[in-house]
Amino acid sequence: MRILSGMRPTGRLHLGHLSVLENWLRLQEENECFFFVADWHAFTTEYENPGQIKDFTYEMVGDWLAVGIDPEKSVIFVQSQVPEHAELHLIFSMFTPLSWLERVPTYKDQVRKLAEQGKDITTYGFLGYPLLQAADILIYLAEGVPVGEDQLPHIELCREVARRFNHLYAPVFPEPQGILAEIKLVPGIDGQKMSKSYHNEIPLTAAAQELARLTNMMVTDPARIHKDDLGHPEVCTVYKYHALYNNEVAEIELSCRAGKIGCVACKKRLAQITEGVLGPVRERRAALTARKGYIEEVLHTGRAKAQLVAAATLEKVRAALNL
Amino acid sequence: MRILSGMRPTGRLHLGHLSVLENWLRLQEENECFFFVADWHAFTTEYENPGQIKDFTYEMVGDWLAVGIDPEKSVIFVQSQVPEHAELHLIFSMFTPLSWLERVPTYKDQVRKLAEQGKDITTYGFLGYPLLQAADILIYLAEGVPVGEDQLPHIELCREVARRFNHLYAPVFPEPQGILAEIKLVPGIDGQKMSKSYHNEIPLTAAAQELARLTNMMVTDPARIHKDDLGHPEVCTVYKYHALYNNEVAEIELSCRAGKIGCVACKKRLAQITEGVLGPVRERRAALTARKGYIEEVLHTGRAKAQLVAAATLEKVRAALNL
Repeated sequence: MRILSGMRPTGRLHLGHLSVLENWLRLQEENECFFFVADWHAFTTEYENPGQIKDFTYEMVGDWLAVGIDPEKSVIFVQSQVPEHAELHLIFSMFTPLSWLERVPTYKDQVRKLAEQGKDITTYGFLGYPLLQAADILIYLAEGVPVGEDQLPHIELCREVARRFNHLYAPVFPEPQGILAEIKLVPGIDGQKMSKSYHNEIPLTAAAQELARLTNMMVTDPARIHKDDLGHPEVCTVYKYHALYNNEVAEIELSCRAGKIGCVACKKRLAQITEGVLGPVRERRAALTARKGYIEEVLHTGRAKAQLVAAATLEKVRAALNL
Repeated sequence: MRILSGMRPTGRLHLGHLSVLENWLRLQEENECFFFVADWHAFTTEYENPGQIKDFTYEMVGDWLAVGIDPEKSVIFVQSQVPEHAELHLIFSMFTPLSWLERVPTYKDQVRKLAEQGKDITTYGFLGYPLLQAADILIYLAEGVPVGEDQLPHIELCREVARRFNHLYAPVFPEPQGILAEIKLVPGIDGQKMSKSYHNEIPLTAAAQELARLTNMMVTDPARIHKDDLGHPEVCTVYKYHALYNNEVAEIELSCRAGKIGCVACKKRLAQITEGVLGPVRERRAALTARKGYIEEVLHTGRAKAQLVAAATLEKVRAALNL
């Protein structure tokens, strides 16, 4: 199956992204995967300050590779380097009713949310965002798209666009399926949602010391003052991490409730476990960084492969339209 | 001055288009002109039936060349063959407020007008039409755009987009001026607006006999039954043509009012005069048609020239955005 997935360039990734990438790793073993940096999508909300997009792109792709996304198996590229996406987006725009875009549930939500942050995204481009996604997917004739539940309406729109094109002109496009994967919800060290903008993240490539330091800062049960106080794991961020990464979480839970393990010791054990997860990623990242020009090379090759497929699709599209 | 102008591909042109092309002829003598076939624009309203766009493109460009648009002096090309337009359009969309597009006066007018013809154009692409025009103009860094009065708000939008880009990123774009030219308003043979869809047009390359036949069909003063009845030129379509093309219109007017020239004779004189205008166009058209592959060749060369300029502008744009 041909699969497409993308991420906005947000720079260095954090532990919250790992499970999305682990899903990509599983997918790349049995499918033809296209993974892309959605820099034009980033531009929809960052248009007033696009300065960092390029650096963020390189940092993020470095992390992809460190986790094991393999340029021999998958096509890794940057959206804006394949302008065929823009052309297909323009063509789709001609027969896509405005109402289809206006009713996408995330649209009004996002406009409101970003307005609270002082960003005005009531732009033509932001309204067309899901249509650009449809072009991103369909230009590769992708059949599967790993998504979160909130993105399902975007896949539905993509299917409608494919159907409409096929109906009006010629049967060029498949109707892609959303692939819902179980993604681990990793809290930030303060227990909130992990996010760079909340400064509560654990970078994927954090040094061992940094990992220990961040683990030490994690919010625990506030009612527990002495190490033999009975703990309440359900309110403890450290416990949530054990639940995600530690096979012996049941033992931790019992010890905590019984006041048999102190928070300091509990955090030390967690740091060992996350080090087991992130240590190899950090090492591969360092090896990559040592290979000057390697990420550029990966993106250069990826672009060529992507463009070959994209150009072939556009040929079919132009023929169908008789342009 | 660098000038850009385009026409939607409507197939064979008619006498109503001649004066627009005569304006192009004047412009090409003293400027660097880019003349393009706006086939993507045609697609905004013809998306349900784009079959004829390609044929119409060749027919129209043939007529341009027959009138004297000169591929040695001007760059003649087809919009959809320069996908850089689509990329710039996408980039502009990111920072263009929806409200700028919604308030363009032609937008709601056109939606209503086409709805009466049973065409639904409340699409994303049709709303973005003036933004695509802005990309068409600015990708060539054009400074002048010949327009009709109704198109001035589109030029104003284009200038706003240029200003916004220059302000947000880097001073890449000029602010183009609309060039208002006096365009002859040629009525159709029934006295209505000349239009292919009203079947009242005089094709630019009509044969001499056809020209005589169409002139004979023109609506004259209905109160004039006998040739010596006193005429009322102000209600006569034939008279309007004399006013546009005949230097001796004053004499015609006097003779008509005095009942000294009959409608048949008056039409015969008109046909001679329009034959003087259209005869050379028809001959050049025939010569062109005889050169197999010539129009393709012109468009091929034009595309290469246009793309050179468009690609250079996009380089600047990408650098300004740091993409």
